[in-house]
Amino acid sequence: MTGPRYAALDIGGTKIAAGLVAGDGTVLDRARVPTPRGGGAAVLAAAAGLLDGLGPFTALGVGAPGVIDAATGRVVSATDVLPGWADTPVREVLAARTGRPVAVVNDVRAMAFGEASAGAGAGFHRVLHVSVGTGVGGAITTGGRLDPGAHGTAGELAHLLVPEDGPVPCGCGRRDHLEAVASGPAIAATGDPARAGALLGRALAGLLAVLDPDAVVIGGGVAQLGAPFLDAVTEAVRDEALPPLRATPILPARLGTDAPLVGAALLARTEERDR
Amino acid sequence: MTGPRYAALDIGGTKIAAGLVAGDGTVLDRARVPTPRGGGAAVLAAAAGLLDGLGPFTALGVGAPGVIDAATGRVVSATDVLPGWADTPVREVLAARTGRPVAVVNDVRAMAFGEASAGAGAGFHRVLHVSVGTGVGGAITTGGRLDPGAHGTAGELAHLLVPEDGPVPCGCGRRDHLEAVASGPAIAATGDPARAGALLGRALAGLLAVLDPDAVVIGGGVAQLGAPFLDAVTEAVRDEALPPLRATPILPARLGTDAPLVGAALLARTEERDR
Repeated sequence: MTGPRYAALDIGGTKIAAGLVAGDGTVLDRARVPTPRGGGAAVLAAAAGLLDGLGPFTALGVGAPGVIDAATGRVVSATDVLPGWADTPVREVLAARTGRPVAVVNDVRAMAFGEASAGAGAGFHRVLHVSVGTGVGGAITTGGRLDPGAHGTAGELAHLLVPEDGPVPCGCGRRDHLEAVASGPAIAATGDPARAGALLGRALAGLLAVLDPDAVVIGGGVAQLGAPFLDAVTEAVRDEALPPLRATPILPARLGTDAPLVGAALLARTEERDR
Repeated sequence: MTGPRYAALDIGGTKIAAGLVAGDGTVLDRARVPTPRGGGAAVLAAAAGLLDGLGPFTALGVGAPGVIDAATGRVVSATDVLPGWADTPVREVLAARTGRPVAVVNDVRAMAFGEASAGAGAGFHRVLHVSVGTGVGGAITTGGRLDPGAHGTAGELAHLLVPEDGPVPCGCGRRDHLEAVASGPAIAATGDPARAGALLGRALAGLLAVLDPDAVVIGGGVAQLGAPFLDAVTEAVRDEALPPLRATPILPARLGTDAPLVGAALLARTEERDR
Protein backbone atom coordinates (compact mmCIF):
# COMPACT_ATOMS: atom_id res chain seq x y z
CA MET A 1 0.00 0.00 0.00
CA THR A 2 1.36 3.41 -0.95
CA GLY A 3 0.32 6.90 0.06
CA PRO A 4 0.85 8.72 3.34
CA ARG A 5 0.86 6.79 6.59
CA TYR A 6 -0.31 8.11 9.91
CA ALA A 7 0.79 7.06 13.36
CA ALA A 8 -1.68 6.73 16.18
CA LEU A 9 -1.49 6.34 19.94
CA ASP A 10 -4.25 5.04 22.19
CA ILE A 11 -3.25 5.96 25.72
CA GLY A 12 -5.13 4.17 28.48
CA GLY A 13 -4.84 3.51 32.18
CA THR A 14 -3.32 0.03 31.78
CA LYS A 15 -1.73 0.01 28.33
CA ILE A 16 -0.55 2.24 25.54
CA ALA A 17 -1.24 1.02 22.00
CA ALA A 18 0.37 2.42 18.88
CA GLY A 19 -0.48 1.84 15.24
CA LEU A 20 0.61 2.75 11.76
CA VAL A 21 -2.50 3.51 9.72
CA ALA A 22 -3.11 4.03 6.00
CA GLY A 23 -5.24 6.89 4.73
CA ASP A 24 -8.23 4.57 4.32
CA GLY A 25 -8.08 3.50 7.97
CA THR A 26 -6.32 0.18 7.47
CA VAL A 27 -4.05 -0.60 10.43
CA LEU A 28 -0.72 -1.68 8.96
CA ASP A 29 1.24 -2.28 12.14
CA ARG A 30 0.62 -2.33 15.90
CA ALA A 31 2.63 -2.20 19.11
CA ARG A 32 1.79 -1.90 22.79
CA VAL A 33 3.32 -1.52 26.24
CA PRO A 34 1.92 -1.37 29.76
CA THR A 35 1.28 2.20 30.88
CA PRO A 36 4.11 3.25 33.17
CA ARG A 37 3.42 4.95 36.47
CA GLY A 38 5.14 8.25 37.06
CA GLY A 39 2.86 10.84 35.47
CA GLY A 40 2.43 12.42 32.09
CA ALA A 41 6.10 12.68 31.15
CA ALA A 42 6.71 8.98 31.77
CA VAL A 43 3.59 8.04 29.81
CA LEU A 44 4.59 10.15 26.83
CA ALA A 45 8.16 8.80 26.89
CA ALA A 46 6.84 5.23 26.71
CA ALA A 47 4.40 6.22 23.95
CA ALA A 48 7.12 7.88 21.90
CA GLY A 49 9.26 4.77 22.27
CA LEU A 50 6.49 2.71 20.67
CA LEU A 51 6.38 5.08 17.70
CA ASP A 52 10.08 4.60 17.04
CA GLY A 53 9.41 1.01 15.98
CA LEU A 54 6.68 1.85 13.47
CA GLY A 55 8.56 3.47 10.62
CA PRO A 56 8.00 6.90 9.07
CA PHE A 57 4.67 8.71 9.21
CA THR A 58 3.17 11.97 7.97
CA ALA A 59 1.34 13.02 11.13
CA LEU A 60 0.44 11.61 14.53
CA GLY A 61 -2.96 11.30 16.18
CA VAL A 62 -3.35 10.67 19.89
CA GLY A 63 -6.43 9.39 21.68
CA ALA A 64 -6.18 9.89 25.43
CA PRO A 65 -8.42 10.00 28.49
CA GLY A 66 -9.66 13.24 29.94
CA VAL A 67 -10.81 16.55 28.59
CA ILE A 68 -8.44 17.69 25.86
CA ASP A 69 -8.07 21.25 24.65
CA ALA A 70 -8.25 20.84 20.87
CA ALA A 71 -6.41 24.08 20.18
CA THR A 72 -3.35 23.30 22.30
CA GLY A 73 -3.44 19.50 22.59
CA ARG A 74 -3.10 19.81 26.36
CA VAL A 75 -4.99 17.74 28.95
CA VAL A 76 -7.40 20.11 30.65
CA SER A 77 -8.60 17.63 33.27
CA ALA A 78 -8.52 13.89 33.86
CA THR A 79 -9.92 11.36 36.27
CA ASP A 80 -7.64 9.10 38.28
CA VAL A 81 -7.58 6.44 35.53
CA LEU A 82 -4.18 7.92 34.66
CA PRO A 83 -2.54 9.58 37.69
CA GLY A 84 -0.64 12.75 36.91
CA TRP A 85 -2.22 13.10 33.47
CA ALA A 86 -3.98 16.44 33.98
CA ASP A 87 -2.13 19.41 32.46
CA THR A 88 0.15 17.20 30.35
CA PRO A 89 1.09 19.12 27.16
CA VAL A 90 0.64 16.08 24.91
CA ARG A 91 0.92 17.81 21.56
CA GLU A 92 3.87 19.96 22.53
CA VAL A 93 5.90 17.04 23.88
CA LEU A 94 5.15 14.60 21.06
CA ALA A 95 5.56 17.18 18.30
CA ALA A 96 8.99 18.05 19.68
CA ARG A 97 9.90 14.36 20.00
CA THR A 98 8.66 13.23 16.55
CA GLY A 99 9.02 16.37 14.45
CA ARG A 100 5.55 15.71 13.00
CA PRO A 101 2.19 17.47 13.40
CA VAL A 102 0.20 16.02 16.30
CA ALA A 103 -3.59 15.93 16.79
CA VAL A 104 -4.85 15.08 20.29
CA VAL A 105 -8.40 14.00 21.08
CA ASN A 106 -10.32 12.38 23.91
CA ASP A 107 -10.23 8.58 23.58
CA VAL A 108 -14.00 8.14 23.30
CA ARG A 109 -14.07 10.73 20.55
CA ALA A 110 -11.17 8.98 18.79
CA MET A 111 -13.09 5.69 18.90
CA ALA A 112 -16.23 7.40 17.61
CA PHE A 113 -14.38 9.08 14.76
CA GLY A 114 -12.72 5.79 13.81
CA GLU A 115 -16.05 3.95 13.65
CA ALA A 116 -17.75 6.82 11.80
CA SER A 117 -14.94 7.18 9.27
CA ALA A 118 -13.81 3.64 8.59
CA GLY A 119 -15.97 1.35 10.72
CA ALA A 120 -19.66 0.69 11.23
CA GLY A 121 -20.63 4.26 10.37
CA ALA A 122 -18.57 4.63 7.19
CA GLY A 123 -20.56 6.16 4.34
CA PHE A 124 -23.21 7.82 6.53
CA HIS A 125 -23.34 11.62 6.62
CA ARG A 126 -24.15 12.11 10.29
CA VAL A 127 -23.23 9.41 12.76
CA LEU A 128 -24.14 9.42 16.43
CA HIS A 129 -21.67 7.23 18.29
CA VAL A 130 -22.83 5.85 21.62
CA SER A 131 -20.18 4.40 23.88
CA VAL A 132 -21.38 2.28 26.79
CA GLY A 133 -18.72 1.13 29.23
CA THR A 134 -17.73 2.36 32.67
CA GLY A 135 -19.80 5.38 31.74
CA VAL A 136 -22.07 6.37 28.89
CA GLY A 137 -20.55 8.72 26.36
CA GLY A 138 -20.65 9.53 22.71
CA ALA A 139 -19.70 11.79 19.87
CA ILE A 140 -21.19 13.12 16.65
CA THR A 141 -19.48 12.99 13.27
CA THR A 142 -21.04 15.02 10.46
CA GLY A 143 -19.70 15.05 6.93
CA GLY A 144 -16.41 13.46 7.99
CA ARG A 145 -15.82 15.91 10.85
CA LEU A 146 -16.02 15.29 14.56
CA ASP A 147 -18.49 17.81 15.93
CA PRO A 148 -16.77 19.62 18.79
CA GLY A 149 -19.68 21.77 19.84
CA ALA A 150 -19.18 25.14 21.47
CA HIS A 151 -17.40 23.77 24.55
CA GLY A 152 -16.07 20.43 23.33
CA THR A 153 -18.84 18.30 24.83
CA ALA A 154 -20.96 17.54 21.74
CA GLY A 155 -22.20 13.94 21.77
CA GLU A 156 -22.02 13.56 25.56
CA LEU A 157 -25.09 11.45 26.30
CA ALA A 158 -24.60 10.64 29.98
CA HIS A 159 -26.86 13.36 31.32
CA LEU A 160 -30.01 12.78 29.31
CA LEU A 161 -32.94 12.34 31.68
CA VAL A 162 -34.57 8.94 32.09
CA PRO A 163 -37.88 8.14 33.79
CA GLU A 164 -36.43 6.07 36.63
CA ASP A 165 -33.57 6.13 39.11
CA GLY A 166 -30.57 3.96 38.31
CA PRO A 167 -28.61 1.79 40.76
CA VAL A 168 -25.31 3.66 40.33
CA PRO A 169 -25.09 7.45 40.26
CA CYS A 170 -24.19 9.25 37.05
CA GLY A 171 -20.70 10.78 37.05
CA CYS A 172 -22.39 14.05 38.00
CA GLY A 173 -24.09 12.44 40.99
CA ARG A 174 -27.68 12.23 39.77
CA ARG A 175 -29.62 8.99 39.43
CA ASP A 176 -32.24 9.90 36.83
CA HIS A 177 -29.60 10.33 34.12
CA LEU A 178 -28.92 7.86 31.33
CA GLU A 179 -25.52 6.91 32.71
CA ALA A 180 -27.08 5.87 36.01
CA VAL A 181 -29.26 3.25 34.33
CA ALA A 182 -27.25 2.08 31.31
CA SER A 183 -23.53 2.07 32.20
CA GLY A 184 -21.58 -1.13 32.74
CA PRO A 185 -21.63 -0.72 36.54
CA ALA A 186 -25.40 -0.07 36.45
CA ILE A 187 -25.91 -3.30 34.49
CA ALA A 188 -23.63 -5.20 36.87
CA ALA A 189 -25.76 -3.91 39.77
CA THR A 190 -29.08 -4.97 38.28
CA GLY A 191 -27.92 -7.98 36.28
CA ASP A 192 -30.40 -6.93 33.61
CA PRO A 193 -28.75 -5.79 30.35
CA ALA A 194 -32.07 -5.96 28.48
CA ARG A 195 -33.62 -3.43 30.83
CA ALA A 196 -30.64 -1.11 30.50
CA GLY A 197 -30.77 -1.51 26.73
CA ALA A 198 -34.46 -0.68 26.65
CA LEU A 199 -33.91 2.54 28.62
CA LEU A 200 -31.00 3.50 26.40
CA GLY A 201 -33.23 2.82 23.39
CA ARG A 202 -36.01 4.97 24.78
CA ALA A 203 -33.60 7.83 25.45
CA LEU A 204 -32.14 7.42 21.97
CA ALA A 205 -35.61 7.47 20.42
CA GLY A 206 -36.10 10.94 21.90
CA LEU A 207 -32.63 12.07 20.94
CA LEU A 208 -32.92 10.82 17.36
CA ALA A 209 -35.65 13.38 16.73
CA VAL A 210 -33.31 16.15 17.91
CA LEU A 211 -30.13 15.07 16.13
CA ASP A 212 -31.70 13.15 13.27
CA PRO A 213 -28.51 11.25 12.39
CA ASP A 214 -28.16 8.97 9.38
CA ALA A 215 -26.92 6.15 11.61
CA VAL A 216 -26.17 5.28 15.23
CA VAL A 217 -23.11 3.20 16.16
CA ILE A 218 -23.01 1.53 19.56
CA GLY A 219 -19.62 0.64 20.98
CA GLY A 220 -17.78 0.34 24.27
CA GLY A 221 -17.40 -2.65 26.55
CA VAL A 222 -21.09 -3.10 27.26
CA ALA A 223 -21.91 -3.31 23.55
CA GLN A 224 -19.94 -6.56 23.61
CA LEU A 225 -22.72 -8.02 25.73
CA GLY A 226 -24.30 -8.53 22.35
CA ALA A 227 -27.88 -9.48 21.71
CA PRO A 228 -29.62 -9.06 25.10
CA PHE A 229 -28.42 -5.47 25.27
CA LEU A 230 -28.30 -4.41 21.63
CA ASP A 231 -31.59 -6.03 20.66
CA ALA A 232 -33.30 -4.22 23.51
CA VAL A 233 -31.84 -0.91 22.34
CA THR A 234 -33.04 -1.47 18.78
CA GLU A 235 -36.47 -2.68 19.82
CA ALA A 236 -37.07 0.38 22.01
CA VAL A 237 -36.03 2.72 19.20
CA ARG A 238 -38.31 0.93 16.74
CA ASP A 239 -41.15 1.16 19.23
CA GLU A 240 -40.83 4.75 20.34
CA ALA A 241 -39.04 6.86 17.71
CA LEU A 242 -41.02 9.08 15.33
CA PRO A 243 -42.16 6.93 12.38
CA PRO A 244 -39.68 8.33 9.82
CA LEU A 245 -36.82 7.68 12.26
CA ARG A 246 -37.63 4.08 13.17
CA ALA A 247 -35.50 2.69 10.38
CA THR A 248 -32.42 4.69 11.40
CA PRO A 249 -29.65 2.06 11.36
CA ILE A 250 -28.47 1.10 14.87
CA LEU A 251 -25.14 -0.60 14.24
CA PRO A 252 -22.72 -2.39 16.54
CA ALA A 253 -19.19 -1.00 16.40
CA ARG A 254 -16.94 -3.14 14.26
CA LEU A 255 -13.36 -1.98 14.69
CA GLY A 256 -12.97 -3.38 18.19
CA THR A 257 -9.87 -2.21 20.03
CA ASP A 258 -8.48 -0.69 16.82
CA ALA A 259 -11.18 2.00 16.79
CA PRO A 260 -9.27 4.63 18.81
CA LEU A 261 -6.13 4.08 16.74
CA VAL A 262 -8.00 4.40 13.47
CA GLY A 263 -9.87 7.45 14.69
CA ALA A 264 -6.78 9.21 16.03
CA ALA A 265 -4.88 8.52 12.79
CA LEU A 266 -7.70 9.76 10.57
CA LEU A 267 -8.11 12.84 12.73
CA ALA A 268 -4.41 13.57 12.21
CA ARG A 269 -5.01 13.14 8.49
CA THR A 270 -7.97 15.52 8.53
CA GLU A 271 -6.08 18.17 10.48
CA GLU A 272 -3.10 17.83 8.18
CA ARG A 273 -5.32 18.39 5.14
CA ASP A 274 -6.82 21.47 6.74
CA ARG A 275 -3.39 22.95 7.24
CA MET B 1 -32.85 50.94 2.33
CA THR B 2 -31.49 49.45 -0.89
CA GLY B 3 -30.54 45.93 -1.85
CA PRO B 4 -32.72 42.94 -2.59
CA ARG B 5 -36.02 42.51 -0.80
CA TYR B 6 -37.62 39.22 0.08
CA ALA B 7 -41.27 38.44 0.53
CA ALA B 8 -42.45 36.16 3.28
CA LEU B 9 -45.68 34.38 4.14
CA ASP B 10 -46.63 33.03 7.55
CA ILE B 11 -49.58 30.74 7.00
CA GLY B 12 -51.55 29.77 10.10
CA GLY B 13 -54.88 28.27 11.04
CA THR B 14 -56.54 31.61 11.74
CA LYS B 15 -54.59 34.19 9.74
CA ILE B 16 -52.09 34.57 6.95
CA ALA B 17 -49.40 37.21 7.41
CA ALA B 18 -47.18 38.56 4.68
CA GLY B 19 -44.09 40.71 4.92
CA LEU B 20 -41.50 42.44 2.78
CA VAL B 21 -38.11 41.89 4.40
CA ALA B 22 -34.68 43.37 3.78
CA GLY B 23 -31.59 41.19 3.57
CA ASP B 24 -30.68 42.02 7.18
CA GLY B 25 -34.05 40.78 8.44
CA THR B 26 -35.71 44.17 8.83
CA VAL B 27 -39.45 43.92 8.11
CA LEU B 28 -40.29 46.80 5.76
CA ASP B 29 -43.97 46.16 5.24
CA ARG B 30 -46.69 43.84 6.54
CA ALA B 31 -50.15 42.66 5.58
CA ARG B 32 -52.58 40.06 6.88
CA VAL B 33 -55.91 38.39 6.17
CA PRO B 34 -57.98 35.75 7.93
CA THR B 35 -57.23 32.26 6.66
CA PRO B 36 -60.04 31.25 4.28
CA ARG B 37 -61.71 27.86 4.57
CA GLY B 38 -61.76 25.77 1.44
CA GLY B 39 -58.46 23.92 1.45
CA GLY B 40 -54.95 24.52 0.17
CA ALA B 41 -55.87 26.24 -3.10
CA ALA B 42 -58.04 28.83 -1.35
CA VAL B 43 -55.33 29.46 1.26
CA LEU B 44 -52.66 29.98 -1.38
CA ALA B 45 -54.92 32.26 -3.43
CA ALA B 46 -55.46 34.48 -0.38
CA ALA B 47 -51.74 34.41 0.40
CA ALA B 48 -50.79 35.37 -3.14
CA GLY B 49 -53.28 38.25 -2.99
CA LEU B 50 -51.42 39.65 0.05
CA LEU B 51 -48.14 39.55 -1.84
CA ASP B 52 -49.57 41.66 -4.65
CA GLY B 53 -49.74 44.61 -2.30
CA LEU B 54 -46.12 44.43 -1.15
CA GLY B 55 -44.16 45.54 -4.18
CA PRO B 56 -41.40 43.69 -6.01
CA PHE B 57 -39.24 41.04 -4.38
CA THR B 58 -36.32 38.77 -5.31
CA ALA B 59 -37.57 35.55 -3.79
CA LEU B 60 -40.36 34.31 -1.53
CA GLY B 61 -40.14 32.33 1.69
CA VAL B 62 -43.15 30.54 3.16
CA GLY B 63 -43.56 29.31 6.73
CA ALA B 64 -46.47 26.91 7.04
CA PRO B 65 -47.80 24.26 9.40
CA GLY B 66 -47.18 20.58 8.84
CA VAL B 67 -44.33 18.48 7.58
CA ILE B 68 -42.86 20.10 4.47
CA ASP B 69 -40.74 18.30 1.89
CA ALA B 70 -37.82 20.68 1.46
CA ALA B 71 -36.95 19.39 -2.00
CA THR B 72 -40.39 19.90 -3.52
CA GLY B 73 -41.99 22.49 -1.24
CA ARG B 74 -45.02 20.27 -0.87
CA VAL B 75 -46.94 19.61 2.36
CA VAL B 76 -46.28 15.99 3.30
CA SER B 77 -48.70 15.88 6.21
CA ALA B 78 -50.59 18.31 8.40
CA THR B 79 -52.79 18.27 11.47
CA ASP B 80 -56.33 19.66 11.38
CA VAL B 81 -55.15 23.17 12.26
CA LEU B 82 -55.54 23.88 8.53
CA PRO B 83 -58.13 21.57 6.92
CA GLY B 84 -57.24 20.37 3.43
CA TRP B 85 -53.62 21.48 3.77
CA ALA B 86 -51.93 18.08 3.37
CA ASP B 87 -50.51 17.46 -0.12
CA THR B 88 -50.74 21.13 -1.10
CA PRO B 89 -47.93 21.89 -3.63
CA VAL B 90 -47.05 25.23 -2.02
CA ARG B 91 -43.88 25.95 -3.95
CA GLU B 92 -45.28 24.93 -7.30
CA VAL B 93 -48.40 27.07 -6.97
CA LEU B 94 -46.69 30.17 -5.58
CA ALA B 95 -43.75 30.00 -7.99
CA ALA B 96 -46.18 29.88 -10.91
CA ARG B 97 -48.23 32.73 -9.44
CA THR B 98 -45.31 35.06 -8.55
CA GLY B 99 -42.66 34.06 -11.06
CA ARG B 100 -40.08 34.08 -8.26
CA PRO B 101 -38.13 31.31 -6.50
CA VAL B 102 -40.01 29.98 -3.46
CA ALA B 103 -38.63 28.34 -0.31
CA VAL B 104 -41.11 26.53 1.93
CA VAL B 105 -40.43 25.53 5.52
CA ASN B 106 -42.37 24.40 8.57
CA ASP B 107 -43.54 27.40 10.61
CA VAL B 108 -41.67 26.46 13.78
CA ARG B 109 -38.50 26.10 11.76
CA ALA B 110 -39.16 29.46 10.09
CA MET B 111 -39.52 31.09 13.51
CA ALA B 112 -36.35 29.39 14.75
CA PHE B 113 -34.36 30.49 11.72
CA GLY B 114 -35.62 34.05 12.07
CA GLU B 115 -34.56 34.25 15.72
CA ALA B 116 -31.23 32.55 15.03
CA SER B 117 -30.43 34.78 12.06
CA ALA B 118 -31.75 38.19 13.03
CA GLY B 119 -33.25 37.83 16.50
CA ALA B 120 -32.11 36.66 19.93
CA GLY B 121 -29.63 34.16 18.47
CA ALA B 122 -27.98 36.46 15.95
CA GLY B 123 -24.19 36.21 16.03
CA PHE B 124 -24.04 32.79 17.67
CA HIS B 125 -22.65 29.89 15.62
CA ARG B 126 -24.99 27.14 16.78
CA VAL B 127 -28.39 28.08 18.12
CA LEU B 128 -30.87 25.64 19.63
CA HIS B 129 -34.33 27.11 19.31
CA VAL B 130 -36.94 25.81 21.74
CA SER B 131 -40.55 26.57 20.95
CA VAL B 132 -43.08 26.04 23.72
CA GLY B 133 -46.71 26.48 22.77
CA THR B 134 -49.47 24.01 22.03
CA GLY B 135 -46.62 21.53 21.76
CA VAL B 136 -42.89 21.57 22.39
CA GLY B 137 -40.73 21.85 19.30
CA GLY B 138 -37.48 23.28 18.13
CA ALA B 139 -34.84 23.60 15.49
CA ILE B 140 -31.09 23.90 15.23
CA THR B 141 -29.27 26.57 13.22
CA THR B 142 -25.54 26.07 12.71
CA GLY B 143 -23.37 28.56 10.84
CA GLY B 144 -26.37 30.33 9.37
CA ARG B 145 -28.04 27.15 8.13
CA LEU B 146 -31.12 25.42 9.44
CA ASP B 147 -30.07 21.87 10.26
CA PRO B 148 -32.52 19.56 8.49
CA GLY B 149 -31.13 16.28 9.79
CA ALA B 150 -31.40 13.08 7.83
CA HIS B 151 -35.22 13.00 7.86
CA GLY B 152 -36.13 16.64 8.44
CA THR B 153 -36.78 16.31 12.17
CA ALA B 154 -33.60 17.86 13.61
CA GLY B 155 -34.35 20.00 16.65
CA GLU B 156 -37.60 18.20 17.53
CA LEU B 157 -37.49 18.19 21.34
CA ALA B 158 -40.95 16.89 22.21
CA HIS B 159 -39.93 13.29 22.74
CA LEU B 160 -37.03 13.68 25.14
CA LEU B 161 -37.66 11.55 28.22
CA VAL B 162 -38.48 13.20 31.53
CA PRO B 163 -38.55 11.60 34.98
CA GLU B 164 -42.25 12.03 35.60
CA ASP B 165 -45.57 11.66 33.82
CA GLY B 166 -47.18 14.82 32.52
CA PRO B 167 -50.87 15.77 32.71
CA VAL B 168 -51.42 15.86 28.94
CA PRO B 169 -50.07 13.20 26.59
CA CYS B 170 -47.29 14.04 24.17
CA GLY B 171 -48.40 14.21 20.53
CA CYS B 172 -47.12 10.63 20.22
CA GLY B 173 -49.28 9.49 23.12
CA ARG B 174 -46.66 9.00 25.84
CA ARG B 175 -46.66 10.85 29.14
CA ASP B 176 -43.00 10.67 30.14
CA HIS B 177 -41.97 12.88 27.23
CA LEU B 178 -40.98 16.55 27.51
CA GLU B 179 -44.07 17.73 25.63
CA ALA B 180 -46.32 16.02 28.17
CA VAL B 181 -44.90 18.09 31.03
CA ALA B 182 -43.91 21.42 29.46
CA SER B 183 -46.40 22.31 26.70
CA GLY B 184 -48.97 25.07 27.08
CA PRO B 185 -51.80 22.59 27.71
CA ALA B 186 -49.68 20.77 30.31
CA ILE B 187 -49.06 24.06 32.13
CA ALA B 188 -52.76 24.95 31.90
CA ALA B 189 -53.57 21.56 33.48
CA THR B 190 -51.18 21.94 36.41
CA GLY B 191 -51.28 25.73 36.77
CA ASP B 192 -47.57 25.55 37.57
CA PRO B 193 -45.35 27.18 34.93
CA ALA B 194 -42.33 27.13 37.25
CA ARG B 195 -42.51 23.35 37.56
CA ALA B 196 -42.81 22.95 33.78
CA GLY B 197 -39.91 25.34 33.30
CA ALA B 198 -37.76 23.39 35.75
CA LEU B 199 -38.40 20.13 33.92
CA LEU B 200 -37.68 21.77 30.58
CA GLY B 201 -34.48 23.16 32.08
CA ARG B 202 -33.43 19.74 33.39
CA ALA B 203 -34.07 18.16 29.98
CA LEU B 204 -32.16 21.00 28.31
CA ALA B 205 -29.24 20.53 30.69
CA GLY B 206 -28.88 16.97 29.44
CA LEU B 207 -29.37 17.98 25.83
CA LEU B 208 -26.86 20.83 26.01
CA ALA B 209 -24.10 18.28 26.58
CA VAL B 210 -25.13 16.43 23.39
CA LEU B 211 -25.65 19.44 21.11
CA ASP B 212 -23.34 21.90 22.85
CA PRO B 213 -24.87 24.97 21.17
CA ASP B 214 -23.50 28.48 21.55
CA ALA B 215 -26.91 29.75 22.65
CA VAL B 216 -30.46 28.61 23.34
CA VAL B 217 -33.44 30.74 22.30
CA ILE B 218 -36.82 30.07 23.90
CA GLY B 219 -39.89 31.17 22.02
CA GLY B 220 -43.51 30.23 21.44
CA GLY B 221 -46.62 31.27 23.30
CA VAL B 222 -45.58 29.82 26.65
CA ALA B 223 -42.33 31.78 26.63
CA GLN B 224 -44.51 34.87 26.91
CA LEU B 225 -45.40 33.70 30.41
CA GLY B 226 -42.13 35.38 31.23
CA ALA B 227 -40.26 35.11 34.47
CA PRO B 228 -41.98 32.24 36.33
CA PHE B 229 -41.37 29.96 33.38
CA LEU B 230 -38.12 31.30 31.89
CA ASP B 231 -36.39 31.81 35.23
CA ALA B 232 -37.15 28.22 36.16
CA VAL B 233 -35.68 26.99 32.88
CA THR B 234 -32.51 28.97 33.38
CA GLU B 235 -32.13 28.00 37.02
CA ALA B 236 -32.43 24.28 36.22
CA VAL B 237 -29.84 24.57 33.46
CA ARG B 238 -27.46 26.43 35.76
CA ASP B 239 -27.99 23.78 38.43
CA GLU B 240 -27.68 20.63 36.37
CA ALA B 241 -25.66 21.23 33.19
CA LEU B 242 -22.01 20.25 32.99
CA PRO B 243 -19.91 23.06 34.49
CA PRO B 244 -18.54 24.41 31.17
CA LEU B 245 -22.11 24.57 29.79
CA ARG B 246 -23.76 26.39 32.67
CA ALA B 247 -23.08 29.78 31.16
CA THR B 248 -24.63 28.89 27.80
CA PRO B 249 -26.91 31.88 27.11
CA ILE B 250 -30.62 31.02 27.48
CA LEU B 251 -32.35 33.86 25.66
CA PRO B 252 -36.00 34.78 25.24
CA ALA B 253 -37.07 35.14 21.62
CA ARG B 254 -37.24 38.77 20.62
CA LEU B 255 -38.87 39.03 17.20
CA GLY B 256 -42.36 38.20 18.45
CA THR B 257 -44.87 37.46 15.70
CA ASP B 258 -42.43 38.71 13.05
CA ALA B 259 -40.12 35.72 13.64
CA PRO B 260 -41.69 33.37 11.06
CA LEU B 261 -41.75 36.12 8.44
CA VAL B 262 -38.13 37.05 9.03
CA GLY B 263 -37.07 33.40 9.05
CA ALA B 264 -38.96 32.52 5.88
CA ALA B 265 -37.58 35.57 4.07
CA LEU B 266 -33.99 34.87 5.13
CA LEU B 267 -34.37 31.22 4.16
CA ALA B 268 -35.46 32.36 0.70
CA ARG B 269 -32.38 34.56 0.63
CA THR B 270 -30.10 31.67 1.63
CA GLU B 271 -31.59 29.35 -0.96
CA GLU B 272 -31.31 32.00 -3.63
CA ARG B 273 -27.63 32.48 -2.83
CA ASP B 274 -27.07 28.74 -3.08
CA ARG B 275 -28.58 28.64 -6.54
